[in-house]
Amino acid sequence: MLLQHATWIEAEAYLRRSNGIIMPIGSTEQHGPNGLIGTDALCAEVIARGVGEAAQAFVGPTIGVGMAVHHMGFAGSMTLRPSTLIQIIHDYVLSLARHGFRRFFFLNGHGGNIATVNAAFYEIYAAAEGALGQAAVDQPLQCKLVNWWDSPAASVVARELFGDDDGSHATASEVSVTQWAFPDTIKRGVTLDPPRAPAGRFYGPADFRKRYPDGRIGSNPGLATPDKGKRLYDAAVPDITNMYREFVAAE
Amino acid sequence: MLLQHATWIEAEAYLRRSNGIIMPIGSTEQHGPNGLIGTDALCAEVIARGVGEAAQAFVGPTIGVGMAVHHMGFAGSMTLRPSTLIQIIHDYVLSLARHGFRRFFFLNGHGGNIATVNAAFYEIYAAAEGALGQAAVDQPLQCKLVNWWDSPAASVVARELFGDDDGSHATASEVSVTQWAFPDTIKRGVTLDPPRAPAGRFYGPADFRKRYPDGRIGSNPGLATPDKGKRLYDAAVPDITNMYREFVAAE
Amino acid sequence: MLLQHATWIEAEAYLRRSNGIIMPIGSTEQHGPNGLIGTDALCAEVIARGVGEAAQAFVGPTIGVGMAVHHMGFAGSMTLRPSTLIQIIHDYVLSLARHGFRRFFFLNGHGGNIATVNAAFYEIYAAAEGALGQAAVDQPLQCKLVNWWDSPAASVVARELFGDDDGSHATASEVSVTQWAFPDTIKRGVTLDPPRAPAGRFYGPADFRKRYPDGRIGSNPGLATPDKGKRLYDAAVPDITNMYREFVAAE
Amino acid sequence: MLLQHATWIEAEAYLRRSNGIIMPIGSTEQHGPNGLIGTDALCAEVIARGVGEAAQAFVGPTIGVGMAVHHMGFAGSMTLRPSTLIQIIHDYVLSLARHGFRRFFFLNGHGGNIATVNAAFYEIYAAAEGALGQAAVDQPLQCKLVNWWDSPAASVVARELFGDDDGSHATASEVSVTQWAFPDTIKRGVTLDPPRAPAGRFYGPADFRKRYPDGRIGSNPGLATPDKGKRLYDAAVPDITNMYREFVAAE
Amino acid sequence: MLLQHATWIEAEAYLRRSNGIIMPIGSTEQHGPNGLIGTDALCAEVIARGVGEAAQAFVGPTIGVGMAVHHMGFAGSMTLRPSTLIQIIHDYVLSLARHGFRRFFFLNGHGGNIATVNAAFYEIYAAAEGALGQAAVDQPLQCKLVNWWDSPAASVVARELFGDDDGSHATASEVSVTQWAFPDTIKRGVTLDPPRAPAGRFYGPADFRKRYPDGRIGSNPGLATPDKGKRLYDAAVPDITNMYREFVAAE
Amino acid sequence: MLLQHATWIEAEAYLRRSNGIIMPIGSTEQHGPNGLIGTDALCAEVIARGVGEAAQAFVGPTIGVGMAVHHMGFAGSMTLRPSTLIQIIHDYVLSLARHGFRRFFFLNGHGGNIATVNAAFYEIYAAAEGALGQAAVDQPLQCKLVNWWDSPAASVVARELFGDDDGSHATASEVSVTQWAFPDTIKRGVTLDPPRAPAGRFYGPADFRKRYPDGRIGSNPGLATPDKGKRLYDAAVPDITNMYREFVAAE
Ligand code: NI
Ligand code: NI
Ligand code: NI
Ligand code: NI
Ligand code: NI
Ligand code: NI
Repeated sequence: MLLQHATWIEAEAYLRRSNGIIMPIGSTEQHGPNGLIGTDALCAEVIARGVGEAAQAFVGPTIGVGMAVHHMGFAGSMTLRPSTLIQIIHDYVLSLARHGFRRFFFLNGHGGNIATVNAAFYEIYAAAEGALGQAAVDQPLQCKLVNWWDSPAASVVARELFGDDDGSHATASEVSVTQWAFPDTIKRGVTLDPPRAPAGRFYGPADFRKRYPDGRIGSNPGLATPDKGKRLYDAAVPDITNMYREFVAAE
Repeated sequence: MLLQHATWIEAEAYLRRSNGIIMPIGSTEQHGPNGLIGTDALCAEVIARGVGEAAQAFVGPTIGVGMAVHHMGFAGSMTLRPSTLIQIIHDYVLSLARHGFRRFFFLNGHGGNIATVNAAFYEIYAAAEGALGQAAVDQPLQCKLVNWWDSPAASVVARELFGDDDGSHATASEVSVTQWAFPDTIKRGVTLDPPRAPAGRFYGPADFRKRYPDGRIGSNPGLATPDKGKRLYDAAVPDITNMYREFVAAE
Repeated sequence: MLLQHATWIEAEAYLRRSNGIIMPIGSTEQHGPNGLIGTDALCAEVIARGVGEAAQAFVGPTIGVGMAVHHMGFAGSMTLRPSTLIQIIHDYVLSLARHGFRRFFFLNGHGGNIATVNAAFYEIYAAAEGALGQAAVDQPLQCKLVNWWDSPAASVVARELFGDDDGSHATASEVSVTQWAFPDTIKRGVTLDPPRAPAGRFYGPADFRKRYPDGRIGSNPGLATPDKGKRLYDAAVPDITNMYREFVAAE
Repeated sequence: MLLQHATWIEAEAYLRRSNGIIMPIGSTEQHGPNGLIGTDALCAEVIARGVGEAAQAFVGPTIGVGMAVHHMGFAGSMTLRPSTLIQIIHDYVLSLARHGFRRFFFLNGHGGNIATVNAAFYEIYAAAEGALGQAAVDQPLQCKLVNWWDSPAASVVARELFGDDDGSHATASEVSVTQWAFPDTIKRGVTLDPPRAPAGRFYGPADFRKRYPDGRIGSNPGLATPDKGKRLYDAAVPDITNMYREFVAAE
Repeated sequence: MLLQHATWIEAEAYLRRSNGIIMPIGSTEQHGPNGLIGTDALCAEVIARGVGEAAQAFVGPTIGVGMAVHHMGFAGSMTLRPSTLIQIIHDYVLSLARHGFRRFFFLNGHGGNIATVNAAFYEIYAAAEGALGQAAVDQPLQCKLVNWWDSPAASVVARELFGDDDGSHATASEVSVTQWAFPDTIKRGVTLDPPRAPAGRFYGPADFRKRYPDGRIGSNPGLATPDKGKRLYDAAVPDITNMYREFVAAE
Repeated sequence: MLLQHATWIEAEAYLRRSNGIIMPIGSTEQHGPNGLIGTDALCAEVIARGVGEAAQAFVGPTIGVGMAVHHMGFAGSMTLRPSTLIQIIHDYVLSLARHGFRRFFFLNGHGGNIATVNAAFYEIYAAAEGALGQAAVDQPLQCKLVNWWDSPAASVVARELFGDDDGSHATASEVSVTQWAFPDTIKRGVTLDPPRAPAGRFYGPADFRKRYPDGRIGSNPGLATPDKGKRLYDAAVPDITNMYREFVAAE
């Protein structure tokens, strides 16, 4: 149930029964030698659509470029400065709030977004009353960020499928999800050397590139397959649907 | 050829043969009783993909929400403030410029974006040298905005199919393109009254809603069909592909 | 009828009969070998004063520096970043709106301003309600940009006087208007080589300077004379006065 | 010697002999029952032109609207937020610095601008190196604000002419200068009651209006005449010319 | 070893042996009926000073007001908008980086700061090269946030002292630390009803106040004593000193 | 009486008897060979605390880093851009205003802050109504900046103690105050050469360092002693207490 696929009259009708909306947010950044640059946006969007169907909830337009300053050492990576991303989320949420939406469930596909999106929520809480007047006092906005891998069921599946080979960037899990959702984009014949990338910390883009020269952190996405992607998707959607429902229903 | 479907290694290879990229930009806003809220984003994205295939050029992530302040009187419309949109385009272009992209071809689906996107280009030209140093002097950035309806061939088709019934907002043309590209989203049984909406000017969202109570301006999208959408698409893609090629090839 | 030449008591009286105001906006940028750096600001101001007299309307303070990033390759050119110009127009309009002004007719002398000024109008529409409260809902602001050369009568005169030699930057027309209005500033003995400058596109300041080394685009301002300037002025003022009157009178 | 009345070729020549420029800045705000709304801008501009002639120095375009938040309780007053004015001065100075200007002499006509303009200078000093690179290190920018009433000679004349009746806002001095420079704008038959307005402090626009209901502070501009304006002008110009010369000549 | 207690000559000497600095950051916000409004800033500062002594490292000036939008329903709470806090951290870090500091260890006392401070780090990484030029490439900046309660030893002590009564806002731990460090500020005779406050989530300030009417979340700060504060301090300082040393020493 | 040392319940009680607050603001910047980098913040804070005790008024959290762009040529100096400092003061004041504070008495320790803080006040006056609604109209905010050396009694003492040797930066007075308040930080065995530093003007940080190589302007802080600091403190506190009382009591 995409907001973009509805008419304004359908949106008006939807608002009579719900004030919740799912907002997918990802990133457009390198994901190692066989992971798609759009991995994080694609995963967030695909799972958001599943949740939207299951919960009969609107899914807003995907924020496809996120906060990925640290990935800028690799060709094709794009980033917003945190201050820009805050403004985007501010404008998205306050636009929708003007029509009556009140529960904003951001479904995230990129760890680098977490801090900035949470900061943005408070920028919005601080601005809401000035922008919306008494309506924001009577019916306050609530914003929540959930990463798709926060699904307990999906975590169990990932652990079972990949163990420590899942890693923390360009994970075997997320590459599997995109392989299942976009089979035409599977990169064949790519050699990963070493199979499992080194793990650890980093600061800024130059440091990232130096430590992780092919872009992966701690992962072996050579283990990814479409079937595993389907299992992860099938595990994540019901979990996150429940989280969405609880969020919208809570007082 | 979506940037999001490539790996960073493929992006690196692409940059050895081209420094051009197609950037779709649309809007998420009411399009009358039978037009999709995402019409402008969907049209821009669909045509951009066609052009990307034809020109073997990368298509960047779609900017799905645009400058639609004047549509905010209708449920589901979203907008960026112009100042936010300028920052987004700034960040998108300078991110990609850091890797060597130099020709940015924005394929637009929403009239309301034109002024702000053109303003953004000059914000970027003013900032480029500070951000990229000597690289921006040696290889200056070039940004261009093309609306998909700027295609002469598509204009001829639209004229032939709809004449004055095409209108200027929620046009029969754009509704046809989305009906062809997303047949599942066709809204059936919607009555348009009057069949052709009134035309004219407006200032701000309240004024828009008062003058055009169902959201259309001068259009009769009741005439839209998927087949007409295909004809428009088939006309637009080659034209815009040529525009892209000329833009990238020009000195 | 300059706002700056009135007292606040006269302004209060004016607001009892009109809520319209003419806002001249120009630029301070090179205009070729014999055109004044202030050409665009001077033309806008001179014609605005004529319209103000004819319509008995206030003329606000001229915005003398505009968006001229692309002219920065030539000594003496000044520019605002688009984001700065948006803030200025925001502050000008909302200042005046607080007193009851509602129709803002920007009379423009510089093509480079058009996109940014139109973007600014929507920044204002988005901000007006937050800034002015219910007053902005009850009596919405309306902003309009008119270029002085949009006058049909002036276009006919320019065509007749200069034909294709008028050009698109440092035009024979605008140089004529400043020669008539400021005869002391006429630059004599300047050789234009070639007489008519090359025409075409450009991206950013370095590209502009390379393509148009003396700063003109497509024009032969060697044909300018004060008398021709007077004819253009006499043609433009009544036309634009009518545009202003219609704008202010329209519902 | 107005920059706006020069060509870019003349600007280039000027820069071979001087890197200084005079920047007039005023305000557009109420000046009591017989003072012009543009008083501060007009005084700054008139005196700047005199100094420009005397020093053979360029005079840049006048900043006609200043920081006048506290005057917003009176019809016709306009203001920039301080943050907007800082951006304007930033853009003006860095535009000109790009061509080689280095000494920026702001000639001010409005007390309310002083704090913000001085703050802006430091915003510029902080930004200059990022914007101009090594050129800003090798030849640092210098900015200075001088109020026209800082002229010792003009102060003596004002004291002699008006004593305590000069006041601190809508002064007899500044009204005299505009009467001399713009005799057509003299407001006749205006009664000032009381002749000398009360004096004191204020905070924000509502407080200002309450304390000073006709807009004057401590002044009796009923004493203003064009002749007195000429005496003030004749006293101020040589003094400020010397200040300009010293500023430009100093190491 | 406070930076503020050193001379610039001592700072210059320090930079020859270390490029690290400890930056305390807290908040000024309600902490329930017996907790100080400055609890978070005071704890961060006190522990930072201890770490600075132990590590012989500079401690920068405390950021005393943080991101506390959600506490604004209680008298005396102060907050920065996230966008303001990002600018502050940007300016602090880039100021110090100009002198050669490279490792910025933010010692945090307020959970509400975490997201925004981490967002700020990436704003800085994105800006550093533009601000510092090649120096930022050759010696990249590294920023890290550590909460004082991240100390494993302090966590063990807190658990042992308070168990579940420690809570998550206005914790018994942090109240103890301030009681030990500032014994004059101990609030006596305050009744906490119920002794342990309810726990849970919240969105925005109105929601916070409704759920937690006396300002505590899940805590019983009636258990706080100065002695317990000393035990927590004694546990935290060595742990965090080690974290600082590792951060500065790491490649 | 530090706000940070109160509970929110005490803050609520305070607001029933007073709407005034003292806000210390200083700077973290070089103060010559024997002056502390924190001199300006420490002096402002120490004197503010004295005034707070005397007037039984709350003292807010110190703004410890100010506008010190011109000091950035010396190790350890920190600065905010003026635009950042404006945002901080905006957030501080509007946070407190939301609870009912209305009189904001900024006690300043750094000349470089004066312009920016005064600019900030008007940014706040312009924003207050939008942020606080009718409450800002009914009970307008009042902000005032006082430098601690504005105390007439302290000026007399400084003159008597140091005469012309007090200087204008890294003054003997302010060094004395910090020596008295923080005796452990006294720098012994520092040679000042020459004993009294040269005096004069400066523009930007490079110019400052060139003219004043050890960081002092016109001062001989070798004359500073703790006893003299106590005399200055004892003179300043009653004076400034009176200023505060008058400010809060004035209509
Ligand atoms: Ni990922
Ligand atoms: Ni459309
Ligand atoms: Ni022109
Ligand atoms: Ni004045
Ligand atoms: Ni706390
Ligand atoms: Ni000092």
